[in-house]
Amino acid sequence: MAGIIQFFIPQDKQFFPLFEKATGNLKNISRALVEMVNIRSIEDRRVYIKKIEDFEHMGDSITHDIFNKLSVNFITPFDREDIHALVSAIDDVADFIHGAAKRMDLYKVGELSTSIVKLAELIEKSADELNNAVVELKDMKNIIKIKEACVRVNSIENHADDIFDMAVAKLFDEEKNAIELIKIKEILSALETATDKCEDAANVIQSIVVKHA
Amino acid sequence: MAGIIQFFIPQDKQFFPLFEKATGNLKNISRALVEMVNIRSIEDRRVYIKKIEDFEHMGDSITHDIFNKLSVNFITPFDREDIHALVSAIDDVADFIHGAAKRMDLYKVGELSTSIVKLAELIEKSADELNNAVVELKDMKNIIKIKEACVRVNSIENHADDIFDMAVAKLFDEEKNAIELIKIKEILSALETATDKCEDAANVIQSIVVKHA
Amino acid sequence: MAGIIQFFIPQDKQFFPLFEKATGNLKNISRALVEMVNIRSIEDRRVYIKKIEDFEHMGDSITHDIFNKLSVNFITPFDREDIHALVSAIDDVADFIHGAAKRMDLYKVGELSTSIVKLAELIEKSADELNNAVVELKDMKNIIKIKEACVRVNSIENHADDIFDMAVAKLFDEEKNAIELIKIKEILSALETATDKCEDAANVIQSIVVKHA
Repeated sequence: MAGIIQFFIPQDKQFFPLFEKATGNLKNISRALVEMVNIRSIEDRRVYIKKIEDFEHMGDSITHDIFNKLSVNFITPFDREDIHALVSAIDDVADFIHGAAKRMDLYKVGELSTSIVKLAELIEKSADELNNAVVELKDMKNIIKIKEACVRVNSIENHADDIFDMAVAKLFDEEKNAIELIKIKEILSALETATDKCEDAANVIQSIVVKHA
Repeated sequence: MAGIIQFFIPQDKQFFPLFEKATGNLKNISRALVEMVNIRSIEDRRVYIKKIEDFEHMGDSITHDIFNKLSVNFITPFDREDIHALVSAIDDVADFIHGAAKRMDLYKVGELSTSIVKLAELIEKSADELNNAVVELKDMKNIIKIKEACVRVNSIENHADDIFDMAVAKLFDEEKNAIELIKIKEILSALETATDKCEDAANVIQSIVVKHA
Repeated sequence: MAGIIQFFIPQDKQFFPLFEKATGNLKNISRALVEMVNIRSIEDRRVYIKKIEDFEHMGDSITHDIFNKLSVNFITPFDREDIHALVSAIDDVADFIHGAAKRMDLYKVGELSTSIVKLAELIEKSADELNNAVVELKDMKNIIKIKEACVRVNSIENHADDIFDMAVAKLFDEEKNAIELIKIKEILSALETATDKCEDAANVIQSIVVKHA
C-alpha cells in the first residue's frame, strides 16, 4: 500500500503547498510572539497582537482549505486521519499563541518574566523545526532530517515543561497577590500548551514517516 | 461514492431520528440554562439545575445509542468519523452547560452578570441553529439552509468570544476578591467553551455537506 | 467481518501483551500515587514522585511501541481507531496522575485532604478494573466479566465526580487564602480528570466488545 501511495506523492500538487503554508504561517506567528514579549509597554505591544491575530486568521483559512481538500479528494498523500491530526495540531499551536498574547493584553501585564520570554523562544524554535520537517515530507528523500527535526521538537517540549514547572513553583513561592498569580499562570500555561501541540504535530509527522519508510 | 451513499440516505431510519433527538435535547438543556441564569435566588435555581441534569443524562443516553448503532452497522448515512465527531461535540455542549450550571450552584453565586446571561442566550441560539441544520441533513434538499445555519453558529461563537474576553478583562479590573474572581471566571469559561463545541458540531456538519453536495 | 477479525485474535502475539503491559503499568503508577498521598512529609513523598515519573516514562514508551506497531501492521486485532483511543486514554490517565503528583510537590502542599486520598484510591480501583477488562479482551471468552469491569469503572467515575464537587464546594466555603485554594483545586482537578480518562478507556473497551460479540 505504501508503494501505491508513494506513487502519488510526486504528483500531489494540492496538499504539500498547503502544509508548507501552514508551518510557514506558524513561523510567522511565533516570531511575532517573540517580538511582542520583548516589549515592556502594553501600548507598544498592540501592533504585534494585531499581527498575531492576522496570522491566526490566516492559519484558520489554511486549515479550512486543507479540510475542504480532504473532503473532496479521494486520494491523499498520507492517511486522511494523519493529515487531519497534523493540521489540527498546527492550528492549535496558533490558537494557543494567540490566546497567550490576548491574555497579556486583556490582563494588562506589564513587564513579562524571563520564563515567558524563554517559552516564546522555544515555541519559535519548534515552529522552525516543524517547518523543516514538513518541507522534507514532500519527497521523503531525507528521512533522517525529518526524524531529527521531530526529535528536537520533542526535546524542546521537555525543556518547556521544566521551565513551566519552575516558573509556576516560583510564582507560588513569591507572588502574594492571587489575582496577579492567576494572570501569569494562565499566560505560562497557554505558552506551555503551544509547545505540547508542536509535539503532537511532530508525533504525527514521525508516524507518517514510519508508515512510508 | 457520494451516489452510493445518497442512495442509502432516504432509507436510513436509524441514525437521523437519533441525530434530531440529540439536537432537540440540546435545545431543551440550553433553554433551561437561559431560564436558570435569569433567576437571582440560589434556592429557586435548583429546579432548573435538576432539569439540566436530567437533560444531560438523556443526552448521554442518546450519545450511547448512536455509538452503539455505529458499532453494529456496517452502513452509515455519513462517514463514521463524522458521525462520531458530530455526536461527541453535541454531547460536549451539554456537558459544559451542565458544568456551568453546577458551578453556579456549588459556588453559591447570587446575582449573575449580564455577560453570563448573554452567553447563555448565545448558547441557546446556537443550539437552535444546530437543530435546524441537523433536520435538513436528512434529505439534503436545502443545502443553502444548512450552510447558513452553520455560518450563524460560527458567528455566534465569535460573538461569545468577544463577550468572554471583555467579561474577563472587566473581572480582572474590578473584582478585588480573588476567590470570587475564580468562581465567575470558571462559569464564564464553561459557557464560552459550550459555544466552541457548538462551532465544532457546525464544522462537522459543513464538512458532511461538502462531501455530499 | 467480525468473523474474519476473530480469526486473527488468537494469533495476535503483538498487541495483547502490550495492552496488558499498559494497564499493568497503570496499576503500578496508581498504587504509587495512593502510597504517596498517605505521606505527610513533602520530603518523604519525593521517592514516590520519582517512582511515578518512572512509571509515566515507561507508559510513554509502551504507548510509543503500540503506535509504531499500529503504523506498520496492516492487520490489527481491533479497529485501529479503537486501539488508538484505548491506548491514548490509558496514557492520559498516567499523565494526569503524574501531573497531580508533581503539583503536590511543586506547590509544597503538606497534609493532603481526605478527598485527595479518596480520589487516589478510586483511580487505583479503576486501574485494576481496566486491567481485568484488558486481560479478558484477549480471548473474549468472558464478555460478562469485561462488561462488569467497565460498568464499575463508570460508577467509580460518578463517585469521583461527587467527591470532587463536594471537595471544591467545601474549599470555596472554608479556604480563605486564594492561593492555597488554587493549589488544592488544581490537584483535585487533575485527579478527577484521571478518573474521566479511565472512563474513556472503559468506553472504548465496551465498544470493542459490542463489535465482536
